[in-house]
Amino acid sequence: MPLVQIKGISGYLSIEQKQEIIRKVTDAVLSVEGEGLRSVTWVLIEDVPSGAWGVGGTPVSSDDLRAMSKA
Amino acid sequence: MPLVQIKGISGYLSIEQKQEIIRKVTDAVLSVEGEGLRSVTWVLIEDVPSGAWGVGGTPVSSDDLRAMSKA
Amino acid sequence: MPLVQIKGISGYLSIEQKQEIIRKVTDAVLSVEGEGLRSVTWVLIEDVPSGAWGVGGTPVSSDDLRAMSKA
Amino acid sequence: MPLVQIKGISGYLSIEQKQEIIRKVTDAVLSVEGEGLRSVTWVLIEDVPSGAWGVGGTPVSSDDLRAMSKA
Amino acid sequence: MPLVQIKGISGYLSIEQKQEIIRKVTDAVLSVEGEGLRSVTWVLIEDVPSGAWGVGGTPVSSDDLRAMSKA
Amino acid sequence: MPLVQIKGISGYLSIEQKQEIIRKVTDAVLSVEGEGLRSVTWVLIEDVPSGAWGVGGTPVSSDDLRAMSKA
Repeated sequence: MPLVQIKGISGYLSIEQKQEIIRKVTDAVLSVEGEGLRSVTWVLIEDVPSGAWGVGGTPVSSDDLRAMSKA
Repeated sequence: MPLVQIKGISGYLSIEQKQEIIRKVTDAVLSVEGEGLRSVTWVLIEDVPSGAWGVGGTPVSSDDLRAMSKA
Repeated sequence: MPLVQIKGISGYLSIEQKQEIIRKVTDAVLSVEGEGLRSVTWVLIEDVPSGAWGVGGTPVSSDDLRAMSKA
Repeated sequence: MPLVQIKGISGYLSIEQKQEIIRKVTDAVLSVEGEGLRSVTWVLIEDVPSGAWGVGGTPVSSDDLRAMSKA
Repeated sequence: MPLVQIKGISGYLSIEQKQEIIRKVTDAVLSVEGEGLRSVTWVLIEDVPSGAWGVGGTPVSSDDLRAMSKA
Repeated sequence: MPLVQIKGISGYLSIEQKQEIIRKVTDAVLSVEGEGLRSVTWVLIEDVPSGAWGVGGTPVSSDDLRAMSKA
């Protein structure tokens, strides 16, 4: 009954990467909460449009994220 | 106030079905909270892309849901 | 897999009323989505502290709600 | 570490208007919380499809909002 | 029908500060969306317990925020 | 700028377990998104009161979770 809701910026992650995150985050949560809760562990990933997410008032794009991730 | 936020998997519900859910959930909530709160009862429905919602680490698609709903 | 997240104002609903809402909202959603999805239908209810929810900029309290519900 | 999540109806705001809201809401929050928190102030704006947001059980569209905003 | 959901760390803001944020954020949003939407503008503020919010994996407390806000 | 919001049932996890989840989930997400995004990765954990979370219409308590986790 852990419910995990993840938001990111549209265009940064592929669907394959999202499914890898779903698997790894599920495993991470269950390593603490107990494997018995696997069937009631939900992880969902939503995208916010590039440019509609501000940090300190400045919009961030998926290109900004790509630059940061390589820094 | 009540605020009801519903998430489902993209491609499973039509807009007509979503509006039927909005009506029925509003009525259900107000039957307990009191009809006087109708004007401040909000119900909104959002879609998560098919494949970006995992149960126990395994992604679920709208086709999976359709199969389950008929089981 | 419908996921229903409800927020209200603290002190307005008893736990028994919340559980009645959980039952009725679940039934309402499944009447449209299909009974086969019952085991993957989650409804959770959270409270926002009285005074920390504004409508048009004006904080609303649980007493305000009680007055409205009887109007 | 204020996290601000805004939802509106799709088709009402342009991306430029969303970014203006991001700037102004960030400034509003920091005027109370302290400018030192600017780098950890996030504001994100998401759209709910027109017709999938009900008030009192009645769906609202972006056209309805436009009519109201001029009233 | 802008819906604004704000989360912060418990123990950082007083209820008076939260209500000041509610007023200022409402005004900020309506300055872009149009005053006609005031009655359907909701702003709600929720607290996450101190220590249960991580940045880069490290929990942040309300004391950390106070130190940052004065930096 | 992954934002991870986790909800569980009150009374199930200790604060130490929540902080272990925060660390492990952060690492899991960054293993896919790139370590360069660490400073903009937020994970926050909120509790829903025991009894206010229903599965298929039936409220679940922290004791139910404890029983499941050992099954």
